[in-house]
Amino acid sequence: MTPEYLKTLLARFKSGEVDEGAVVEELAKFSFEEVGFAKIDHNRAMRTGYPEVIFGEGKRPEQVAEIFVNLAARNEVVLCTRASGEIAEAVKKRFAAAVYDNLSRIVMTPPSKKERVGEVALACAGTSDLPVAEEAAQVMEAFGSNVKRLYDVGVAGVHRLLSHVDTLKSANCVVAVAGMEGALPSVVAGLVKVPVIAVPTSVGYGSAFGGIAALLTMLNSCASGVSVVNIDNGFGAGVQADMINKLAVKGGGASR
Amino acid sequence: MTPEYLKTLLARFKSGEVDEGAVVEELAKFSFEEVGFAKIDHNRAMRTGYPEVIFGEGKRPEQVAEIFVNLAARNEVVLCTRASGEIAEAVKKRFAAAVYDNLSRIVMTPPSKKERVGEVALACAGTSDLPVAEEAAQVMEAFGSNVKRLYDVGVAGVHRLLSHVDTLKSANCVVAVAGMEGALPSVVAGLVKVPVIAVPTSVGYGSAFGGIAALLTMLNSCASGVSVVNIDNGFGAGVQADMINKLAVKGGGASR
Amino acid sequence: MTPEYLKTLLARFKSGEVDEGAVVEELAKFSFEEVGFAKIDHNRAMRTGYPEVIFGEGKRPEQVAEIFVNLAARNEVVLCTRASGEIAEAVKKRFAAAVYDNLSRIVMTPPSKKERVGEVALACAGTSDLPVAEEAAQVMEAFGSNVKRLYDVGVAGVHRLLSHVDTLKSANCVVAVAGMEGALPSVVAGLVKVPVIAVPTSVGYGSAFGGIAALLTMLNSCASGVSVVNIDNGFGAGVQADMINKLAVKGGGASR
Amino acid sequence: MTPEYLKTLLARFKSGEVDEGAVVEELAKFSFEEVGFAKIDHNRAMRTGYPEVIFGEGKRPEQVAEIFVNLAARNEVVLCTRASGEIAEAVKKRFAAAVYDNLSRIVMTPPSKKERVGEVALACAGTSDLPVAEEAAQVMEAFGSNVKRLYDVGVAGVHRLLSHVDTLKSANCVVAVAGMEGALPSVVAGLVKVPVIAVPTSVGYGSAFGGIAALLTMLNSCASGVSVVNIDNGFGAGVQADMINKLAVKGGGASR
Amino acid sequence: MTPEYLKTLLARFKSGEVDEGAVVEELAKFSFEEVGFAKIDHNRAMRTGYPEVIFGEGKRPEQVAEIFVNLAARNEVVLCTRASGEIAEAVKKRFAAAVYDNLSRIVMTPPSKKERVGEVALACAGTSDLPVAEEAAQVMEAFGSNVKRLYDVGVAGVHRLLSHVDTLKSANCVVAVAGMEGALPSVVAGLVKVPVIAVPTSVGYGSAFGGIAALLTMLNSCASGVSVVNIDNGFGAGVQADMINKLAVKGGGASR
Amino acid sequence: MTPEYLKTLLARFKSGEVDEGAVVEELAKFSFEEVGFAKIDHNRAMRTGYPEVIFGEGKRPEQVAEIFVNLAARNEVVLCTRASGEIAEAVKKRFAAAVYDNLSRIVMTPPSKKERVGEVALACAGTSDLPVAEEAAQVMEAFGSNVKRLYDVGVAGVHRLLSHVDTLKSANCVVAVAGMEGALPSVVAGLVKVPVIAVPTSVGYGSAFGGIAALLTMLNSCASGVSVVNIDNGFGAGVQADMINKLAVKGGGASR
Amino acid sequence: MTPEYLKTLLARFKSGEVDEGAVVEELAKFSFEEVGFAKIDHNRAMRTGYPEVIFGEGKRPEQVAEIFVNLAARNEVVLCTRASGEIAEAVKKRFAAAVYDNLSRIVMTPPSKKERVGEVALACAGTSDLPVAEEAAQVMEAFGSNVKRLYDVGVAGVHRLLSHVDTLKSANCVVAVAGMEGALPSVVAGLVKVPVIAVPTSVGYGSAFGGIAALLTMLNSCASGVSVVNIDNGFGAGVQADMINKLAVKGGGASR
Amino acid sequence: MTPEYLKTLLARFKSGEVDEGAVVEELAKFSFEEVGFAKIDHNRAMRTGYPEVIFGEGKRPEQVAEIFVNLAARNEVVLCTRASGEIAEAVKKRFAAAVYDNLSRIVMTPPSKKERVGEVALACAGTSDLPVAEEAAQVMEAFGSNVKRLYDVGVAGVHRLLSHVDTLKSANCVVAVAGMEGALPSVVAGLVKVPVIAVPTSVGYGSAFGGIAALLTMLNSCASGVSVVNIDNGFGAGVQADMINKLAVKGGGASR
Repeated sequence: MTPEYLKTLLARFKSGEVDEGAVVEELAKFSFEEVGFAKIDHNRAMRTGYPEVIFGEGKRPEQVAEIFVNLAARNEVVLCTRASGEIAEAVKKRFAAAVYDNLSRIVMTPPSKKERVGEVALACAGTSDLPVAEEAAQVMEAFGSNVKRLYDVGVAGVHRLLSHVDTLKSANCVVAVAGMEGALPSVVAGLVKVPVIAVPTSVGYGSAFGGIAALLTMLNSCASGVSVVNIDNGFGAGVQADMINKLAVKGGGASR
Repeated sequence: MTPEYLKTLLARFKSGEVDEGAVVEELAKFSFEEVGFAKIDHNRAMRTGYPEVIFGEGKRPEQVAEIFVNLAARNEVVLCTRASGEIAEAVKKRFAAAVYDNLSRIVMTPPSKKERVGEVALACAGTSDLPVAEEAAQVMEAFGSNVKRLYDVGVAGVHRLLSHVDTLKSANCVVAVAGMEGALPSVVAGLVKVPVIAVPTSVGYGSAFGGIAALLTMLNSCASGVSVVNIDNGFGAGVQADMINKLAVKGGGASR
Repeated sequence: MTPEYLKTLLARFKSGEVDEGAVVEELAKFSFEEVGFAKIDHNRAMRTGYPEVIFGEGKRPEQVAEIFVNLAARNEVVLCTRASGEIAEAVKKRFAAAVYDNLSRIVMTPPSKKERVGEVALACAGTSDLPVAEEAAQVMEAFGSNVKRLYDVGVAGVHRLLSHVDTLKSANCVVAVAGMEGALPSVVAGLVKVPVIAVPTSVGYGSAFGGIAALLTMLNSCASGVSVVNIDNGFGAGVQADMINKLAVKGGGASR
Repeated sequence: MTPEYLKTLLARFKSGEVDEGAVVEELAKFSFEEVGFAKIDHNRAMRTGYPEVIFGEGKRPEQVAEIFVNLAARNEVVLCTRASGEIAEAVKKRFAAAVYDNLSRIVMTPPSKKERVGEVALACAGTSDLPVAEEAAQVMEAFGSNVKRLYDVGVAGVHRLLSHVDTLKSANCVVAVAGMEGALPSVVAGLVKVPVIAVPTSVGYGSAFGGIAALLTMLNSCASGVSVVNIDNGFGAGVQADMINKLAVKGGGASR
Repeated sequence: MTPEYLKTLLARFKSGEVDEGAVVEELAKFSFEEVGFAKIDHNRAMRTGYPEVIFGEGKRPEQVAEIFVNLAARNEVVLCTRASGEIAEAVKKRFAAAVYDNLSRIVMTPPSKKERVGEVALACAGTSDLPVAEEAAQVMEAFGSNVKRLYDVGVAGVHRLLSHVDTLKSANCVVAVAGMEGALPSVVAGLVKVPVIAVPTSVGYGSAFGGIAALLTMLNSCASGVSVVNIDNGFGAGVQADMINKLAVKGGGASR
Repeated sequence: MTPEYLKTLLARFKSGEVDEGAVVEELAKFSFEEVGFAKIDHNRAMRTGYPEVIFGEGKRPEQVAEIFVNLAARNEVVLCTRASGEIAEAVKKRFAAAVYDNLSRIVMTPPSKKERVGEVALACAGTSDLPVAEEAAQVMEAFGSNVKRLYDVGVAGVHRLLSHVDTLKSANCVVAVAGMEGALPSVVAGLVKVPVIAVPTSVGYGSAFGGIAALLTMLNSCASGVSVVNIDNGFGAGVQADMINKLAVKGGGASR
Repeated sequence: MTPEYLKTLLARFKSGEVDEGAVVEELAKFSFEEVGFAKIDHNRAMRTGYPEVIFGEGKRPEQVAEIFVNLAARNEVVLCTRASGEIAEAVKKRFAAAVYDNLSRIVMTPPSKKERVGEVALACAGTSDLPVAEEAAQVMEAFGSNVKRLYDVGVAGVHRLLSHVDTLKSANCVVAVAGMEGALPSVVAGLVKVPVIAVPTSVGYGSAFGGIAALLTMLNSCASGVSVVNIDNGFGAGVQADMINKLAVKGGGASR
Repeated sequence: MTPEYLKTLLARFKSGEVDEGAVVEELAKFSFEEVGFAKIDHNRAMRTGYPEVIFGEGKRPEQVAEIFVNLAARNEVVLCTRASGEIAEAVKKRFAAAVYDNLSRIVMTPPSKKERVGEVALACAGTSDLPVAEEAAQVMEAFGSNVKRLYDVGVAGVHRLLSHVDTLKSANCVVAVAGMEGALPSVVAGLVKVPVIAVPTSVGYGSAFGGIAALLTMLNSCASGVSVVNIDNGFGAGVQADMINKLAVKGGGASR
């Protein structure tokens, strides 16, 4: 938007050639928001398709509850991830309908009545990885995607994974969660035609280095079609898989 | 597939209830292939939707040429990434129609006549990152996706990126390539509703540590919807973005 | 297993040339198991020769107890490693005969009456490394190997190790456990003709980096015949040493 | 051996109670060798069962040739690993019967006429990993073990590995070689009852960090029975696998 | 100061050419202080313009209180950073006028009556980074600089930052505080003409590695004019920004 | 800038209350530039006070020469850092007046006639660090700051530094360059009242890790008033020191 | 000691040419000790000049007390480092004369009446480093060296160190203890003619990485005559400094 | 030195109570030197007992030759370490008597006629470590210490080391050089009563990480009396060992 372009736009507006709405729409693309009004980025849903999500770790319970209520006044779906039991209690006190899942550690608004769409396959290597996997699952379901869980399918018993090859192949996207050596996504990506979102977990000890071993494994996957999120970032994987699933369901995507 | 299930299947086959084709189809899901027949995984395209791609680095020119010809006999699109000029020469000697792009360092079969579909936006931070960006671009175009290039849009002059916000928003997927501090994907992901595939490059010096700085930046993005591939892995990002783009174009994805 | 091979097999089955049992056996090599039936991999013992072992860390006591009882119904030897006192209590409540060793932190089924076979020498550098060494020892004894313990034989007083050279030389395999600088396996491997399994421990401080120093020392051993397991992984070393010991006792191994 | 013990021994020798041979044998256990005589550790074969092997990297060709000839005068099998073409030439000039394999980069004495024994399965993930795999193979064959090569069986096409499950199961030991994400040993170890020696290779780029990614993967394997050697250390894996194979063939190992 | 120089100086002093004051002033440049007199570096303010500041972490409350009182006897401004509530209590008991801010965790002498000068803009990416940002803010205000806070302006919603571009541009210096991927300083430095002091925080998880990701991002900023302090070092950034601000206000700096 | 604000602004413009210039000025703060016009960020000088500088490493000589000429048409000062001799030759062929300094490896437009202002002290630990120090010096002088060089003043002979304490104290800013253990900035910062910009260099070997040791030393300086740039980043330090020096000279900085 | 040599020795013994004492002395050089007698290495003092010292961390109080009493029966000086208050209590219950210093965390036998010899200067950068410095000091004093403490002499106020230059120069050895950036040993070693033993401490935060920054600084010291011990290893530095001090006092060291 | 102290000193000088010499001597302790006179630290030998040594790496041959000649004019012993053949040639052209040793890569003044004193034992693990060991040896001999070389005594054949135990025990200091796993110093330190200076070398591959593995091993030695220098720093170890050796020979060290 050069000054020249802007001058022309203003001239056309003054002359009545374009109306107020068009000018506003044009400039709104740049999304400048009055910051003095509110710190909370209510505009994010419009811009990115997803509401702001509360990251509970390190926040005080009342603080979270306050933000939760604030967001819930304007959004249908409100989520707080990494929520301790104390946070959940504080939220429920302010927002009685809130639901807490103590495996994924998510507290959120009650499940929507809208039907979920598409299908994401969620493969998880070991039972210790479940909290991360469930964080991804709950996020996807909250945002409206169907999730097919394939748990305890680590590569040390690869037949367990292979017996679910149909489920994997029929999904629009696969989320693969693994700690320790993190080899699951490589094997999965060798079997399917859709994107695999790999989530390393901090499960392991010694040279697992809190998830670094799994992270490196996934980044170096010899199978193509794999991309990776941060260690234990079930939320991030869930959002991206949800995006892909919805693109796949909706179709008719951008085309020149 | 339990023994019980198998026994039943065999019984139904013997009795003529199901025919040979159905049994083979059922078992073929597990894709066991006679390896003595050929090392080259011709079956991969069927299984994953993508042909085997040759990684040129560290291979000898004649070796690559041999594999290239072999694959070209059975696939419409054959690619060799990280190809030196010598490799390109060797391939062209055996397969005259091959095309070499010395920015992306890809040698491949000539461009398909088929129309490309959808649109992937490809944002690249600096001119030194172009070889990696072009690797992604060439791969996506070879596999049939439209690519919209937005080059030299690093965050140190964020207005350059913002002026292209429409292009970013209208794509089905964004690939964001950056070296040094690697902040581009975070800014991009805050602007769009679609998946952002982040590619760290080894561009930089000192504490850039050959791409580690950019890799960590991207893994820790505070914006959701970002996933990451290996350092300099334009190919991997291209394949995943192509997958997402096609899902978005085709639509009607899996749904329960 | 090509489709052709399968078709021939099916034809021979239908014609009665081979019976149901042979077909099942042939296909069972691939070990596909009905996963809906049970998550617990009961099939592992048949496939790998070892039952599934419970890794107690991060699991809840009742959870462990449940799995323990379940496995004990089908296996003679059941082990839970990294078991806290609380886990041990929970297991004993459900399985009264269980035995807890609070040095190795293993809770298991009572010792078998079967005679143990062969001999593994277990060398341990310092007294702080004992929990890891005992984890290895208990695992080997539980699975039926004789273990000869050589404790407190660190290289800072190398004469202590040398005075046991006979014990080391007569074993079928040596497990060498050390923290801090982890030099023990190198010295041991220079003295014996059998495999040395090196176990770095997290004992140390400062630049010991939780076992990394010892791990690197062992990986870089200038003596040949050394291989290494994860930091503090007494269990893994024990299983591999037990495998080697039994191969040595049984003899008549595979030969073309 | 306390002074007291020694005094008694000497007294018994002087009195004729024990003869010279017994005293020498007793003391020889400690293997002290006159170092002034020769730096080359000729005694190693007696002590460890394996002759000293020359590590060619960083040594000058004539230097290697000199040591080679020296060792060949006393040993049937002499090996120099990591030998450049120049080293091979220098060795051949001094020892005409020497054989050079330019894949494994080993120059050695000509193959023995003795029949090889047992069987080690050698699984290798990708073609770029072959030099390391062949280093292991050549070492095992030189020392007298049969080797069954399973090449190009990476986990991105897991069916290739599964179709060789019989070969893996019938071996006395498996060596599994892989670069990039290094997931092969985990999958293999979930299928067999024998020790798996894992060899990470430096194949890969970016966050493969010259083999660290594969090394960590292997150290953190969720399958038991895996131990690991240094990056690219085909030699070390070969020696250990050879030891295990021979123990398995010979049998009747140490037993109390 | 050569012996020759000193001799001349002394001669001139003895002859009365220079007086005692001039000699003392000349030698005082080297600031040697009788250490037997006191460990506390009272001389620092004269030398560096800033009084010694107490780093509270790891010190005992009474210990801090003692030093605080001691310093307060000779300095107008006394600060203790990283002060726990216990430390604050102990200080207040000894120095009743002390003020504690439990966000920045600073306990200090009451605010000065002197008017603050100039202006430093303080941009902070997320609410979890506030303790570090406030440490910088409190330090700058205590030392006499005006601070303009711009909080919650992370790059995932870059419009928030852009709407404050005037504030950023009109400051004498910018302090930019961010955790996770730490991209804020790069974007800021692309917008302003003054130095940007970047402060990485330890906010984040997984591959944020306690602030390393943000630190590397900032060190590799593609925008010029950025320098970096230690992770969570709000204090250090505050001091340097205060120095720059005062230089800018005072002007007439050193010139040949 | 909310839509409301914009609507009001537009209404006032249409009614003639504000004129075109005021509207443009208001919106121009956000600096959106037509990117289709030129990739080279000519606008940067206006925005940040510094022209775009060419980073020569990894660029081809003709490419650099082209950009150099292009920039020189619009800027008085044009710099290319990390320029090889080949780059310098290529630039001179296109721009005959260009000057090359082969210590700092900078090729640039000839020195300005304008008098330089203020003073920056540039302390450098060892002679091997000089290329980095000179990069900083040349940049500062090109942009118009006086530089006082203090070379070979490493802390292993601390008296050398102390004898220059007057020079250090009288500067507006100090740049301190050091490799190996990088202790110089800490000692300097304990002596002066102005900002110290620390530049770690890659000089050293072994555990210097290409500059990491010096970088960490500087980030952890126990003296306050130190901030750090990337390893070997003389350019970045020079720009920031130049900014500070000019602020100090000009004075009258922003004040509420 | 070849078999030949041994045979000759035995023959000479039998013939009476050499007596029992000479044979024992000859063989005793190799120090083989009856390990069945005791695990505690009582022989160490004779071999290395220092008794075994108990490392208290991670040991149980009663366990430490038991070892303490055992050692005290045979040694004049017994030390337990890293002793918690609980350990100290347990030791005192068994050995009433034991003394506990809760700064250095050492519990030991009461101070010897023997006069201490020589002098070691002990320089310590900050007050947080005192526990490590005192560990070194207590060890040296217990073993009989005089220690001259120079505390709070960090390089950020280098004049404090310089004012003690006489003390440093007159010592036989200097121990220099520092955390954070760890620059003290470099400055010290530039001032003295004797060995400097550098001790990095884990004091610091952020990129101090628990002492790694200080460790690297010290390893890369540009001053010669510096060697380094593990992070926080005051004990190790104390032992080595004590050795050097005693060599310096005694004189007449080995000479050909 | 407080102002008060100085005033008194000056008053006593003026009154004639103390003379010029005493004042100069008092102030000279702080060693301020006119730096304008010469950059080369000629004063170092007086201050530290060792002349400045040239580090040849990265310096140009003529540059080294110039400094060499300059130093040789004032010092009996001049050394340049890490000198390439080209540097040696350049030095010899200017200083014909210079001697070059191409194993240690040192060029120096011809050997002194003075008798060497004392004895340092120099143990070296493998033949590839010799260049580093010889750097230490040449430095010690040049400075006047006797050196007893024990080469090829790595721990994989520990008997070789043990057969030299007398040599080790009779030295005043031991330098122990090792690459790969670096275990040699630990074993040595368990055998002797004198300081062991450990030198890690960059010999090794894979996870040796250019000497990090050996460095960590040595820092974590379980034997006391070990201190460590930088990777490949034979020079630094040589200087410190020479210091210790001379202290031991001279005796009568500082004592209160």
